[in-house]
Amino acid sequence: MSQARHAFDQAIALQAAGDGVFEGHTHAAYANMVGPFGGITAAQMLQAVWLHPERLGEPTALTVNFCAAVADGPFVVHAQAVRTNRSTQHWFVTLRQDDAVVASATAVTALRRATLRAQDAGMPQVPQPDQVPPMAGKSPVAWIDRYDIRYVRGGLPREWDGSDAGDSQSCGWFADEPARPLDFASLAALCDVFFPRVWLRRAQRVPIGTVSMTVYFHATAQELADNPGRFVLGQAHSHVMHDGFADQTGALWSEAGRCLATTHQSLYYKE
Amino acid sequence: MSQARHAFDQAIALQAAGDGVFEGHTHAAYANMVGPFGGITAAQMLQAVWLHPERLGEPTALTVNFCAAVADGPFVVHAQAVRTNRSTQHWFVTLRQDDAVVASATAVTALRRATLRAQDAGMPQVPQPDQVPPMAGKSPVAWIDRYDIRYVRGGLPREWDGSDAGDSQSCGWFADEPARPLDFASLAALCDVFFPRVWLRRAQRVPIGTVSMTVYFHATAQELADNPGRFVLGQAHSHVMHDGFADQTGALWSEAGRCLATTHQSLYYKE
Repeated sequence: MSQARHAFDQAIALQAAGDGVFEGHTHAAYANMVGPFGGITAAQMLQAVWLHPERLGEPTALTVNFCAAVADGPFVVHAQAVRTNRSTQHWFVTLRQDDAVVASATAVTALRRATLRAQDAGMPQVPQPDQVPPMAGKSPVAWIDRYDIRYVRGGLPREWDGSDAGDSQSCGWFADEPARPLDFASLAALCDVFFPRVWLRRAQRVPIGTVSMTVYFHATAQELADNPGRFVLGQAHSHVMHDGFADQTGALWSEAGRCLATTHQSLYYKE
Repeated sequence: MSQARHAFDQAIALQAAGDGVFEGHTHAAYANMVGPFGGITAAQMLQAVWLHPERLGEPTALTVNFCAAVADGPFVVHAQAVRTNRSTQHWFVTLRQDDAVVASATAVTALRRATLRAQDAGMPQVPQPDQVPPMAGKSPVAWIDRYDIRYVRGGLPREWDGSDAGDSQSCGWFADEPARPLDFASLAALCDVFFPRVWLRRAQRVPIGTVSMTVYFHATAQELADNPGRFVLGQAHSHVMHDGFADQTGALWSEAGRCLATTHQSLYYKE
């Protein structure tokens, strides 16, 4: 009996077409309101680096710029090492449709060596995932059903009444649904799982779009694969919303309290 | 009597050489231990976008990847608009020496429109700049003398004795020295002014280098030009230091308490 491949693995599947070029296709399971969930686009671009035969080491930093709406359909990812050093490598990645750039990215891959370790980012004290109810209600878009989402605080407003929540802090448990072992691609996607801070701050579903998103990875592939938990705890907040652009900063911890990634975004919003 | 041009303006001066290509030169006044201060390199790359005749709007996001040591001498910056939309524009920028990429960057420029504004990032309560003594001692590198640096807390360790500071938080006032009106370039440079968190955390001057740096701008050019204060208040901390790579996250406020920029880095460090 064959096991069906996880939708996430289907979504990030790329066909090598030579010289750093990879062909992929958007996946209906990760559809957003317009085009795909940004996290899956980020994962697809990182995956091109991951699959590149000249890759040195593992991802430590990724910045994805969402240049235009990705149309449902095929796309071409081009991953190019612009500089390869002894222990670090710098990548420039584009995702194109009909030869136009719809997303661009830079990534750093590196050989790590064991050094001092310090984690200043303590995991927030929250109830365990099995004690927190999953987000209720029918999902307005497909990708939300690909995640088990359990907000501990700062969840989606119950009433879209324009009231001011007072702050932009959210904290919750997130997991691939169905479960899937963590890797860099899925961790990158999870970094985009938070609903927009401006929705929380104003209880108003204004049009938004992530413009640029950065992920710093704080674990190795082996450490991610060895991670025993199903959920990550995510926390996010905004510093500033100003004249159409807001930032978001966040962190993801393993169930055991290890900070696996920190992530930052610049988002466009309308009033 | 002519007034000498500020060293910062000399350092970011670029000669247009057609088709998004700009020629520049490193400046001795911003020299670091090896090559120039990363902040000045970031400013030079942003300046190429700023000077580009096809630029739409003003910078909202910038990510600079430091691919290799910049050698003292001439360089060529190439700024390319990879996508231009109605109100946003996406840039890919390279800085080359001897035709090799030594730094790469992406930037977003955008037309802002007046919308709701919210600032969740309150400025830390600290004494005013004139009540805080400037950093004392002879600067080991030139660029430090280009700034008036007044740490309120988390300053450079007095003793490099390997003791654990307990956390990686720093907060202080920073200004161009001599004074210079704020603009996007100088704000980008100021985002790199913090000494490495790993030095603070371990009171040990281990070799470090910024690998990737992101800046989100939360003000317009006009708002920066109108800023009456000489100093910005900067706060920075690290979430994780793990096996050779550490992150840093920070924010800069005007003297009046407005958050002008948030900034994030991934740094390489040796033990």
